[in-house]
Amino acid sequence: MDSINQNQPEDNFKNLEGEDANKKIKELAESAESCFFITNIKTGIPLSVRPMSIQKIDDEGNFWFLSANDSHKNAEISTDPFVHLLFQESKYAGFLNIYGIAEISQDKEKIKELWEPILKTWFTEGEDDPRISVVKVEPSEGYYWDNKHGAVVAFAKQAIGAILGKTLDDSIEGQLTV
Amino acid sequence: MDSINQNQPEDNFKNLEGEDANKKIKELAESAESCFFITNIKTGIPLSVRPMSIQKIDDEGNFWFLSANDSHKNAEISTDPFVHLLFQESKYAGFLNIYGIAEISQDKEKIKELWEPILKTWFTEGEDDPRISVVKVEPSEGYYWDNKHGAVVAFAKQAIGAILGKTLDDSIEGQLTV
Repeated sequence: MDSINQNQPEDNFKNLEGEDANKKIKELAESAESCFFITNIKTGIPLSVRPMSIQKIDDEGNFWFLSANDSHKNAEISTDPFVHLLFQESKYAGFLNIYGIAEISQDKEKIKELWEPILKTWFTEGEDDPRISVVKVEPSEGYYWDNKHGAVVAFAKQAIGAILGKTLDDSIEGQLTV
Repeated sequence: MDSINQNQPEDNFKNLEGEDANKKIKELAESAESCFFITNIKTGIPLSVRPMSIQKIDDEGNFWFLSANDSHKNAEISTDPFVHLLFQESKYAGFLNIYGIAEISQDKEKIKELWEPILKTWFTEGEDDPRISVVKVEPSEGYYWDNKHGAVVAFAKQAIGAILGKTLDDSIEGQLTV
């Protein structure tokens, strides 16, 4: 902990486990709707990064994506399934960092469940398009940065802190163990 | 290029160089206001990630941050100055990926230039707080994902594409060479 965090009069670290961790992940990721999906972590420098829409986060905290089976992403996951997902809910809060293991399948049932009509723009043959693959990411560890009471309180506390010259912010962060 | 992008009737890749690259970087990063700042890329798995506010992007395309000199981030930059910055302007567009070299200094002039009153919440002694350090990131390469005509047009095109079963989106992406 650096000297700035040591100045916080309130506790601003809170690790979350199990159900609480799942709830926080779902809340932040569903609100973000998209993420940076990072592959090639161990096998390549530079890392390989692209934005991705999430289709679903299930109750076990797994992330589900639809992806073209001939994409670079799929090729990279086949070589190295260790991936990194970064979500951002708003400009200054609701950041989520997830490490996980990705698994690719062509599970027809799951494609049907995740399908949305707008996807026909890309998978032009619809939900039976043979290029659709399902990418599941099972989180292995995570970290979040958020505000305790939302943006308005956070801003007010920071402003009061600045006037008083006191480290006073509404931030809360911690490890997520699912 | 995967089979989905090959279906795009319009050109949706455009690499930008020099002044055009700088302009795009400034536009996306200034609108994002904060980023994921990733260190420990070569030297550690997992990567080390945290959200950071940007203080400034100068006309040469360099990013400027203020950081506590006893933070993990500063220690990691001292070991390995190769960093990765990820910016997100909105939920589905304006994504920016920057690789660069970070340099830490205690340049008093620069601190004065980057200082904002709200920072007194964290650097409680104000702009003369001895813990303030300046982190400059000079981009070495970048990539962007954006829409050509903004969110409304992008959505309309995708919806029409979905009805027609044609790959029709307003996306544009490419390499940034500064």
